[in-house]
Amino acid sequence: MSDLDPTLPWLDALKWDADGLIPAIAQNEQGRVVMFAWMNRASLQETVHTGNAVYWSRTRRRLWCKGEESGHFQKIKSIRTDCDGDVLLLAIEQAGGISCHTGRASCFFNELHGEQWVPVDQVLKDPKEIYAR
Amino acid sequence: MSDLDPTLPWLDALKWDADGLIPAIAQNEQGRVVMFAWMNRASLQETVHTGNAVYWSRTRRRLWCKGEESGHFQKIKSIRTDCDGDVLLLAIEQAGGISCHTGRASCFFNELHGEQWVPVDQVLKDPKEIYAR
Repeated sequence: MSDLDPTLPWLDALKWDADGLIPAIAQNEQGRVVMFAWMNRASLQETVHTGNAVYWSRTRRRLWCKGEESGHFQKIKSIRTDCDGDVLLLAIEQAGGISCHTGRASCFFNELHGEQWVPVDQVLKDPKEIYAR
Repeated sequence: MSDLDPTLPWLDALKWDADGLIPAIAQNEQGRVVMFAWMNRASLQETVHTGNAVYWSRTRRRLWCKGEESGHFQKIKSIRTDCDGDVLLLAIEQAGGISCHTGRASCFFNELHGEQWVPVDQVLKDPKEIYAR
């Protein structure tokens, strides 16, 4: 993969996959990686314009403003891309301190212990409460 | 996507994509996200068995032990997966403090400033020196 060309218009400089998507990693104020999702051009533009993370939901096939149901919006602090411009890294401020639909701070709560995935992080809020609104 | 089933054998619990791959995010000791790459089953097994990050190179179509050319091996501290088991997060110790082929600490060195990607991190070592061995 050739390196990112920063002289191109910023959206064209990125390498979109065959489906027009790019992976996006969200990292919170404490430096925890909290989420991984996908963006298309429209969602990245929305993200930049609104200042809140907007992803492309591959299952629902629509733009998905993180927090639209849960209230757990992700305020954008900065957006980076990698050397070859095919992944995004979002520094975010996580509303409510919860990024995962299970009510945990991060989606990455399953740790490999020997040959077993063990949920090692605590649930901060019951999902029933989060999605009851 | 249904949530990860931790009662399944650990490799089967993960959701491999149509190409048999899963994205892997590497985070260093300082909490910086330094790399994003792909793994297949064999590379993840190698990673676990050797204790060093081994990825699947989609361009070269072969297992790729990070550091095999540069010496910048990534020692595995822990491996996590997310709520639905379709992404890996590796906590690593980065040999030489350089993860990127450009000689920077992290591959994520391009920051969006207005409508421009700006390389904001410093090159720690000339790539010519890194790959001269």
